[in-house]
Amino acid sequence: MSQSPSPPPEPSAELLQRAAIVRRSAMALGQLADADRQAAVLAMAEALEAARAEILAANQADLDAASADGLAAALVARLHLNGAKLDGAIEGLRQLAGLADPLGRRQLHTELDAGLVLERVTVPLGVVGVIFEARPDALIQIASLAIRSGNGALLKGGREASRSCAAIMAALWAGLAHSTVEPTALELLTSREESLGLLKLDGLVDLIIPRGSNELVRFIQDHTRIPVLGHADGICHLVVDQAADPQLALRVALDAKTQYPAACNAIETLLVHRAIAPTFLPAAIAAFEAAGVELRGDAEALALGVSQAASEADWHTEYGDLILAIKVVADLEEALEHIRRHGSRHTDAICTSDAAAADRFLAAVDSAGVYLNCSTRFADGFRYGFGAEVGISTQTLPPRGPVGLEGLVTYRYRLRGEGHIAADYASGTRSFTHRSLPL
Amino acid sequence: MSQSPSPPPEPSAELLQRAAIVRRSAMALGQLADADRQAAVLAMAEALEAARAEILAANQADLDAASADGLAAALVARLHLNGAKLDGAIEGLRQLAGLADPLGRRQLHTELDAGLVLERVTVPLGVVGVIFEARPDALIQIASLAIRSGNGALLKGGREASRSCAAIMAALWAGLAHSTVEPTALELLTSREESLGLLKLDGLVDLIIPRGSNELVRFIQDHTRIPVLGHADGICHLVVDQAADPQLALRVALDAKTQYPAACNAIETLLVHRAIAPTFLPAAIAAFEAAGVELRGDAEALALGVSQAASEADWHTEYGDLILAIKVVADLEEALEHIRRHGSRHTDAICTSDAAAADRFLAAVDSAGVYLNCSTRFADGFRYGFGAEVGISTQTLPPRGPVGLEGLVTYRYRLRGEGHIAADYASGTRSFTHRSLPL
Repeated sequence: MSQSPSPPPEPSAELLQRAAIVRRSAMALGQLADADRQAAVLAMAEALEAARAEILAANQADLDAASADGLAAALVARLHLNGAKLDGAIEGLRQLAGLADPLGRRQLHTELDAGLVLERVTVPLGVVGVIFEARPDALIQIASLAIRSGNGALLKGGREASRSCAAIMAALWAGLAHSTVEPTALELLTSREESLGLLKLDGLVDLIIPRGSNELVRFIQDHTRIPVLGHADGICHLVVDQAADPQLALRVALDAKTQYPAACNAIETLLVHRAIAPTFLPAAIAAFEAAGVELRGDAEALALGVSQAASEADWHTEYGDLILAIKVVADLEEALEHIRRHGSRHTDAICTSDAAAADRFLAAVDSAGVYLNCSTRFADGFRYGFGAEVGISTQTLPPRGPVGLEGLVTYRYRLRGEGHIAADYASGTRSFTHRSLPL
Repeated sequence: MSQSPSPPPEPSAELLQRAAIVRRSAMALGQLADADRQAAVLAMAEALEAARAEILAANQADLDAASADGLAAALVARLHLNGAKLDGAIEGLRQLAGLADPLGRRQLHTELDAGLVLERVTVPLGVVGVIFEARPDALIQIASLAIRSGNGALLKGGREASRSCAAIMAALWAGLAHSTVEPTALELLTSREESLGLLKLDGLVDLIIPRGSNELVRFIQDHTRIPVLGHADGICHLVVDQAADPQLALRVALDAKTQYPAACNAIETLLVHRAIAPTFLPAAIAAFEAAGVELRGDAEALALGVSQAASEADWHTEYGDLILAIKVVADLEEALEHIRRHGSRHTDAICTSDAAAADRFLAAVDSAGVYLNCSTRFADGFRYGFGAEVGISTQTLPPRGPVGLEGLVTYRYRLRGEGHIAADYASGTRSFTHRSLPL
């Protein structure tokens, strides 16, 4: 889906009708017991296993077509679903079934007055819309997250993965047919028109989850009024403070850049305090170059051995590759200002042994994740212990940062009375107790 | 601000600069201690008291101009700020200062591994944009909510209240000047151009809060990418089940319609189970008519004594007045379907003594508030015990329903390590403990 100057077209009557069916099925699904939803996810896993050969054959056909079309190697790699990847995805479903139920959790419990009791309880969102590129295993993951949390889903994969997605969806539907969840809670969209129409399904779709390139995410954010869970950019920084342990800082910096440079939580810029730069940078430059990292520095970094000059664009570029911009800063405040101007509010870290500098950094940097003396690569739902990851959000409002199943639930207030009316409180006949009850 | 076919213009350079100043002041404010923010709110209250005469005089000038312009009576009533209203608003500030700090609350605390500890802590949103009509006391309320929760605010009042708003803001700034909060954390917008520009301040404004007519809210929702906290419609239903206690149901229905019909949480439609309609409706019709309520019924309700026929439009109209639509339904499922089709997901209630019917209603109705045997008029932040109300949201995602100070905060993840790197976990050298720590 490429950038388009014109707004998306209105959804077709046929798409509206299909979305309404998903919504209706989702409402029924949302009222099922935990055990029903667990069983449904396990049935999806079994059906995927039973359809293993068909799915891998369909993926091979997609790969053959991609090869004939001359698809970029990186895209082909993401499209490729070998037996191990598929088995991993199936194992992921079994783990998901075992996670604690995100629904029906009481978050608030208050007696407003004798016999008038308020509860706030988690409930599913309703229907999520998912648009992803290439990776067919993302379809398995998101469809199962939706079912586990009581939500329906409209799923749109990339054209290049159409055969894989069709085979996977056939298996997921077959699995749901052996459960109490209606298979119509999941719907596969296949055309670009449907994908654009999905963005206009306000009232039928509660959340859009894009899984793909920064361009895809930005296009979706710009063309829908439905809330979008995701992030376009991941420009993460590591600050090496004057009070940093140089060895610790280098170890963290290397991991944050090189452990998986394509990840959104890898760093793009290293900000080095002027006081430590002359001792830290020469060793760091050697280590990064040995690790195959291309370095781009400001004037001071160049003077200390970085060979290539950074341009203004480098400070706000997400390389997603073994490239690192390095800037020497006069003090912590300059580092904070740089992050404020160029960061994407994803994850930023500092290495320091100075408690005051650490506190200042953790309080002042307004990113979803602020880290001390560890790698930005920990910004991930699994690493945070959520068991599953719906996405990572860089928006200000919750859910923010890595989002687990809680990103697919909302809450509802339930108030139970015995004929209570507001007029009695307005007149002073009765008054509120507002007494907290056990959760 | 009326409906406009063209998108809002880009914000002027001057507005961008003013918004950037607010944002910078807000960042400093957000790092102040609770006591500083409490003191700032109390200083605002004192300054309002000191400027009482000027504010009331400015309001009188607005009222004179409104009278000369022939402003609608309802708008004039909302514009009017008498001494009692102002004193009430000032007292509200003192109460707000005493509420528990919404910032710095630890929501999650997990040891990821020995020496690697994750926290999720509440932090301010940053800057809120507020657009309100007429009521100058709303300016006092929202400005103080923002400061209490560590947020900056760009505030735009209606043209009709311009003198009142200027006098109030002068007092608020004077109050903040006697505190540790920079007065530039609050900014008053005055022109329609600024108001439209505010809608385009993505990246500088984190949340828009509209306070005004349904049309105002809908216009704002349609013309900004910034999240909007609010609701356009409040079409609330009360279902009188076959197993309802007729006297209890009538008492609740009368309160829900007549206690304050202009409120968004008043009911617009009464859905009566066919089995109870012949006994319930005649008495209800008499009681509603005695209370001055105009009734509009479907064919069955007409047959039971309602004198005026309801049109299709009545089922999705928010009267905000002493008018009630009445429909007789065959069963609970028909009532649920009616609410699903016509409701605005605000607050819906059922009166019944049948536990199964109550459970079905509370599970199946997807509204922010679902009530049993009590009036919909309880849907309110103060009545819920939140101490303050930022607004009521009918969106699916949290915050939903009446929103207190928590609607002005978000959270941030803090991860503190001792040189921990992701590669050690990928290689299996180390593994996560994911141990919950006390909050």
